[in-house]
Amino acid sequence: MIDRLALIGTGLIGGSLALGLRAQGAVGEVVGYSRRLETRLSAERLGLIDRPADSVAEAVAGADVVFLATPVTAMDAVLAELADCLPETALITDGGSVKGAVVDRARAHLSSTQLARFVPGHPIAGREHSGPSAATADLYRGHRVILTPLPENAPDDVARIEAMWQAVGARVERLDVAHHDHVLAATSHLPHAAAFAMVSALARLAERYEVFRYAAGGFRDFTRIASSDPVMWRDICLDNRDEILGMLDHYRDELDRLRELMAGRDGEALERYFADAKAVRDALYPVADSGDGRKGGPARPAGE
Amino acid sequence: MIDRLALIGTGLIGGSLALGLRAQGAVGEVVGYSRRLETRLSAERLGLIDRPADSVAEAVAGADVVFLATPVTAMDAVLAELADCLPETALITDGGSVKGAVVDRARAHLSSTQLARFVPGHPIAGREHSGPSAATADLYRGHRVILTPLPENAPDDVARIEAMWQAVGARVERLDVAHHDHVLAATSHLPHAAAFAMVSALARLAERYEVFRYAAGGFRDFTRIASSDPVMWRDICLDNRDEILGMLDHYRDELDRLRELMAGRDGEALERYFADAKAVRDALYPVADSGDGRKGGPARPAGE
Repeated sequence: MIDRLALIGTGLIGGSLALGLRAQGAVGEVVGYSRRLETRLSAERLGLIDRPADSVAEAVAGADVVFLATPVTAMDAVLAELADCLPETALITDGGSVKGAVVDRARAHLSSTQLARFVPGHPIAGREHSGPSAATADLYRGHRVILTPLPENAPDDVARIEAMWQAVGARVERLDVAHHDHVLAATSHLPHAAAFAMVSALARLAERYEVFRYAAGGFRDFTRIASSDPVMWRDICLDNRDEILGMLDHYRDELDRLRELMAGRDGEALERYFADAKAVRDALYPVADSGDGRKGGPARPAGE
Repeated sequence: MIDRLALIGTGLIGGSLALGLRAQGAVGEVVGYSRRLETRLSAERLGLIDRPADSVAEAVAGADVVFLATPVTAMDAVLAELADCLPETALITDGGSVKGAVVDRARAHLSSTQLARFVPGHPIAGREHSGPSAATADLYRGHRVILTPLPENAPDDVARIEAMWQAVGARVERLDVAHHDHVLAATSHLPHAAAFAMVSALARLAERYEVFRYAAGGFRDFTRIASSDPVMWRDICLDNRDEILGMLDHYRDELDRLRELMAGRDGEALERYFADAKAVRDALYPVADSGDGRKGGPARPAGE
């Protein structure tokens, strides 16, 4: 149970946590601050927060948990402000997609006692929309939240943040900071970079018009993540640069490997290559993708 | 109106054409041949065909349209057989994903009068399942079918195949053979290769378990096409090898370009890069991806 939750950032991520906690009766009051007045008023009107605050200091006064749900770019300024106004008893956690860079900023700005009360986290939830109006009480239900506790954290504090996420239905896991950034570079950052690059590569073709005209369902699925927010992805690329660069190199090596099989017309090896990848992918998503459950149905489309 | 349609291949692609034509009253009798007895009996039982044939020759006897809907690998043998048994009045078309290789095989096997009656085609329809049981009358409704007429084709024959596809609701377009294979390499073959390579790259990581464990919706969408049929994709890669190799190089250059922006920490250029790609992608799929139509909603997920 949280008596007073302070949201710094009252959009989808912060607002959904507040709604979820409220739906479970797991929070008393929610106070929210967003840089833009319009956003915090909208969050109040939509019932995400009980009370808008005009500053970070006002928002966190009397809070027992502070959730940083701003874009990662804003975190530096917010952490600097927090250092001067954080109540002694407040726990802090965040929702940033990259953890190393956030922790570095926290170490730069917070005192050692404040830092000990910062339990970094990353809710892995798909986000179709952004802003307060997109917030829902069940955004995190069934989704993973990765906590990356610091050596300085007290086990009870980590357990409390874990319980908060569990209250909204999330499956909480723990990784260390570097491992989180490495795994997410592979699983999320690299695919996003590859999708953005795919759309750019095709847009650069002279036959751009025909290319997109004849794109089918597979292309649509493949490039969906290239519709993601450019500012957020700029920040992720800057904040997790080294890991993503490593993954890009790893991916390029893999493309070269496939290219070689094709160049050498090695049908047997190509079939094995595709079958191995398909086996991995089908094991990850066993049934759900086959739609109506008719037998013989792997994912769509088999070919276009 | 087709009096007798011969299907060579009675699975999803052939069966769906037959069902669609029948639903429109646009075909008299449908005779079907598949290499496997079980497949053609199943096609008969499911009402895709009126009568199973025990050979290509038996299937095409008396047909006015022959539709080749076998895997591309089988086309060579089928075309060789057709050369000996094709009725003089029959038109031929096919559903292969690569056109140059199919046309080369047709040129190798068919007489010049037979070749003149072969109008190559490629229905671009998503295929969640395969086999006769997956066939539906509306598979092609609203989907594009690309015809790649040969210089030898009579305009009336091309128009007749076009009318056949229009009867089942397809939007028919014409491209020349080389242009088709180039455009499809970009739009379908490259993304499939990139998705297979992505799954393989991640499977090769030491952290394979964690990597896939923390994969979210974006990764799922991005890799859906890596669940496609390995044999079909082996064949496409062999049949359209040169175009796909060129596209892989083009894509690698693009990844290098993005890598350079990241390596140089060029935030402004990164944001512009992502924004440009997003603009192209959003223009392609303006509303449908935003789900419930709430405002502020591009495609999911903005970040994971």
